[in-house]
Amino acid sequence: MGFFEKYVSGEYLYNGKIVKLRKDIVELPNGKQTVREVCEHDDAVAVLAVDDRNRCVMVRQFRYPFGEEIEELPAGKMDKVGEEAIESARRELAEETGLKAKELIYLGSMYPSPGFMTEVLHLYFARNFEKGEQNLDEDEFLNAYWVDIDELKRKIVSGEVKDGKTVCALMLAQLKGVL
Amino acid sequence: MGFFEKYVSGEYLYNGKIVKLRKDIVELPNGKQTVREVCEHDDAVAVLAVDDRNRCVMVRQFRYPFGEEIEELPAGKMDKVGEEAIESARRELAEETGLKAKELIYLGSMYPSPGFMTEVLHLYFARNFEKGEQNLDEDEFLNAYWVDIDELKRKIVSGEVKDGKTVCALMLAQLKGVL
Repeated sequence: MGFFEKYVSGEYLYNGKIVKLRKDIVELPNGKQTVREVCEHDDAVAVLAVDDRNRCVMVRQFRYPFGEEIEELPAGKMDKVGEEAIESARRELAEETGLKAKELIYLGSMYPSPGFMTEVLHLYFARNFEKGEQNLDEDEFLNAYWVDIDELKRKIVSGEVKDGKTVCALMLAQLKGVL
Repeated sequence: MGFFEKYVSGEYLYNGKIVKLRKDIVELPNGKQTVREVCEHDDAVAVLAVDDRNRCVMVRQFRYPFGEEIEELPAGKMDKVGEEAIESARRELAEETGLKAKELIYLGSMYPSPGFMTEVLHLYFARNFEKGEQNLDEDEFLNAYWVDIDELKRKIVSGEVKDGKTVCALMLAQLKGVL
């Protein structure tokens, strides 16, 4: 048996730099009405880039919602008009780490928070690189570094790495047999 | 070298049912100022509950931001005052699936979308259950069902399962050796 929620009415409450907030009234399967708050957010990409020594490149970046630096895969919003996900992945990897990937493999797409956010995260695996220079946005500050995949797994188990997209990419790369 | 963003000023733009939206001005490491939009959202729990036939319990639920039913682990917000994460996990599993877990193991905590959302997701592994009845909220509609872990992995690879917390819980359970 399938369930569906039918749009009744709605309004935008905020149209910001990275997020739009919408408040809709919907009709539930039982005929009652309720409120659904929806965060609209650009889709995003993240890249698990692994070298021939079984190391992957990570970035350490201050994340304001948590007030701390966290360790995560190179990633970014798909905010360039007309750019395909694989091109966003190639661009973000190059900008944040200087690595120019010769081979990018699509791992899958995830919903980070499907209850109220429209963001879809497209995950890629990269191998074979040319090295270049970081090319960060003016207001972007991060450090890129290599970590052994085994060490990354240890950090996930210990809780040092808490970033959801990093864990998802690792799982998908294993399930797809590329790692 | 560490980076930090310093709070300068801020205001709440919206205080809703499940989300608060905040707009802060922060000072960047280069001394410039920029805007940070922050979605404040309750922390949440999700449970990977596995039986002695290597099946896990999933729920199929309409997710309004995507306009479709998706398959995901039993999960919910920690919106009961004073409730610990492990108690939320036990309660959500029982409400959504009828399963009363005798054993709950903490897998780890993840940030689903650390760039702009404060939500932390606490993941648990459950085994040994008593079976009972679903006890859904009045406005909650979902179907619970069992799926082989190998079939779940196949669905993740094929893209039928796109829920981030489900993929994270599976990875953590494997890394922690409980699955």
